[in-house]
Amino acid sequence: MSAGDLIHSLIAYPCKRGVRSLFSYEILVFTLMLETTGPDFSRAELIPVIAQDAENGDVLMMAWMNQEAYEETLRTGKVVYYSRSRKKLWRKGEESGNVQELKALYFDCDADTLLVKVHQIGGAACHEGFRSCFFRRVDPSTRSVTVEGDRVFDPKEVYRKS
Amino acid sequence: MSAGDLIHSLIAYPCKRGVRSLFSYEILVFTLMLETTGPDFSRAELIPVIAQDAENGDVLMMAWMNQEAYEETLRTGKVVYYSRSRKKLWRKGEESGNVQELKALYFDCDADTLLVKVHQIGGAACHEGFRSCFFRRVDPSTRSVTVEGDRVFDPKEVYRKS
Repeated sequence: MSAGDLIHSLIAYPCKRGVRSLFSYEILVFTLMLETTGPDFSRAELIPVIAQDAENGDVLMMAWMNQEAYEETLRTGKVVYYSRSRKKLWRKGEESGNVQELKALYFDCDADTLLVKVHQIGGAACHEGFRSCFFRRVDPSTRSVTVEGDRVFDPKEVYRKS
Repeated sequence: MSAGDLIHSLIAYPCKRGVRSLFSYEILVFTLMLETTGPDFSRAELIPVIAQDAENGDVLMMAWMNQEAYEETLRTGKVVYYSRSRKKLWRKGEESGNVQELKALYFDCDADTLLVKVHQIGGAACHEGFRSCFFRRVDPSTRSVTVEGDRVFDPKEVYRKS
């Protein structure tokens, strides 16, 4: 059921119940609308965002969005983050060309984390040239680290100084 | 190449180069060890952790670990988070029984985010009874929200007050 369907069916409800139950009904609608409208930027200015490859399910990276980045992502269909180090919007791929096309967007049960499923242009999300930023695996017993996955591009070639 | 192999080959290196290059060699080893030993808790006490279903690749949830939670996770093979609201270790599943068995652990290129691939006992990671916490999908054009996925359990049955 979509939020629209839900609200529509709720609007019909008090007509059957009469005026007496209107107040508790309004609280219910308000709660449900809060729950179902999207991520809650009122509690935190920046919300963590997990980017997942829509085709093969690989987790590509984690970054952050503010309200503006979220709105632009939905409007343009290209994923925009907020760079905490540069303190400004980060239109992923603006330098490398490796943009992320938005395929689906989810928010979690606490409305404080986002999941975007993307088509990763160029095949690599990581600035080090790997498909995923999570290319270092820790062995729990030895603590040794192995690199999984191949480099898709050479960062020196992609991020040239002009 | 594992971190162990890397360090072993580096130990052999200055014997060939002589004492003069030892200082720069030590800086190199130190940098590589920093890079390859695991997540960096010195910059942030809490590190975000993405939990992914090892079998089907679903992103299940996002939570946080401190150094203690990380160490216990590696030692026990069961995922332990740090609860920011309760301000203590959160042994996932300690109440519901829905523990997460660790199958693989990765850290990202900045060493400030973790990815754990898990076997989710009970089939559901979300306290609302869904397989994944990301069960609400936003339609970019209408902003309507749809629920994807079925409830695996009824939270009222699992989290009973004793």
